[in-house]
Amino acid sequence: MKKYRRNQRVGALMKIFTDRPNHIFSYNYFSELFNAAKSTISEDIVIVKGLVNDLEFGKIETISGASGGVIYIPSMNRKEQESLLNDLCQTFSDPFRIIPGGYIYMSDIFNSPYYSHSISKIIASQYSKQSIDYVVTVETKGIPVALMTAKELDVPLAIIRRNSKVTEGSTLSINYVSGSTKKIESMTLSRRAIKEGSRVLIVDDFMKGGGTAKGMKDLMLEFNVEVIGVYVVISTKEPFNKLVKEYNSLLVLDDVDEESRRIIIKPNDDNKIRINN
Amino acid sequence: MKKYRRNQRVGALMKIFTDRPNHIFSYNYFSELFNAAKSTISEDIVIVKGLVNDLEFGKIETISGASGGVIYIPSMNRKEQESLLNDLCQTFSDPFRIIPGGYIYMSDIFNSPYYSHSISKIIASQYSKQSIDYVVTVETKGIPVALMTAKELDVPLAIIRRNSKVTEGSTLSINYVSGSTKKIESMTLSRRAIKEGSRVLIVDDFMKGGGTAKGMKDLMLEFNVEVIGVYVVISTKEPFNKLVKEYNSLLVLDDVDEESRRIIIKPNDDNKIRINN
Repeated sequence: MKKYRRNQRVGALMKIFTDRPNHIFSYNYFSELFNAAKSTISEDIVIVKGLVNDLEFGKIETISGASGGVIYIPSMNRKEQESLLNDLCQTFSDPFRIIPGGYIYMSDIFNSPYYSHSISKIIASQYSKQSIDYVVTVETKGIPVALMTAKELDVPLAIIRRNSKVTEGSTLSINYVSGSTKKIESMTLSRRAIKEGSRVLIVDDFMKGGGTAKGMKDLMLEFNVEVIGVYVVISTKEPFNKLVKEYNSLLVLDDVDEESRRIIIKPNDDNKIRINN
Repeated sequence: MKKYRRNQRVGALMKIFTDRPNHIFSYNYFSELFNAAKSTISEDIVIVKGLVNDLEFGKIETISGASGGVIYIPSMNRKEQESLLNDLCQTFSDPFRIIPGGYIYMSDIFNSPYYSHSISKIIASQYSKQSIDYVVTVETKGIPVALMTAKELDVPLAIIRRNSKVTEGSTLSINYVSGSTKKIESMTLSRRAIKEGSRVLIVDDFMKGGGTAKGMKDLMLEFNVEVIGVYVVISTKEPFNKLVKEYNSLLVLDDVDEESRRIIIKPNDDNKIRINN
């Protein structure tokens, strides 16, 4: 069997940790993979811990006990976070994005693997200590960011559908009133999608009136799960009073002026963990 | 400014490459990040090349010239691929998944960050040399695998909608006939989503009659783009003649027997690159 040098093992460890953040890997797993003694792996992990710390990639934690092992909890340093937020604000506020009616074309940003992944790193780092069991979203535009957040937290994603589908099996549905248009809408989730008693994080792309987020929270009540947080990428400044009181948003959309072709969008200065329990 | 040791730089390089496969990073970028001479970085890259090769993580390529740099092209070794396919077949064929009417509940698998990411690695490795500009899918169940494939290939994702949305701006729509139900359906994509003359890879979760895939191909014609491939995670054995002639599928669904509660699903032995041009 092949033997590897230390810097090969260190590189491989970083590759494996990066591929699956927030996942517990056992020392045995690495020991077998690298054909090396556990004591050797322990020394490798010390080096990886140091580099993750020195380069501000987050941290490596060692969990002792039978189900123990090593886990990589990524985080984004302040400089990177600021530069991402500036980039996002600039990209979202390009006047080319204005659609008649005062809407903004955003799909390319939300669907971008680069942006959805980058945003998910910020979201996940705020909830990595909250023992989240599922990330939940509603189709369609929030799916990429929600999926990436679920990947970062190493938990499953549940996607709420707008209509009941035969391939979802038995479902739970609710009707809700859209916060901005006041129309009655419905949402549906397969009963198999989420286990009772779980802790879920709701992630979506956009919040105006908050009706959709409230609908999701209400649907989660039907599943007997605890909503640990509601996180949206963009919330609008107005209306100030939204149907959901506790939520977090990365950016705030202040104004869209069709005539002067100006979009004002800013990082959310209140951006902090809010926990509704 | 901080200086880093070689094994720290090697670990950091693997982290950065894994975070963004198929992306060209310049030597300058690493040189500044690590506060190290380009010659030092070159030596680091040689080590990373070796470890990626020795551990069968894919390969590292150096591109010379003004827009040159270093790129990590991941691949999954045969053993890992076989073990993933076996795991998928076993998971998909759990009798618990049978839904009245002979359908199979699959959403949890398609939405799983772990499975969608793993599947995307196989898909992407087959197209990493094809200069794909976009991955295209249709909402909803194919989105996670399509997004992960786009991430692996470092290209944008375009999501075709079932209905026109005001937030998509001007759109192109087509009507098409579902291959299995013969119903007329429509699909819509924002004109801003894809640039003319691009090369696209279509990715979806499931193909029975092939009507949806054909619809997507027809819609791509309207965008004047070239469809380089159609890849579905699961295709059904019957009907043998599908509305799309050239496609690739990871798994083949052979039979669902509601009475005996048996699902037969197998790796697609023909799994190989098919190029329709």
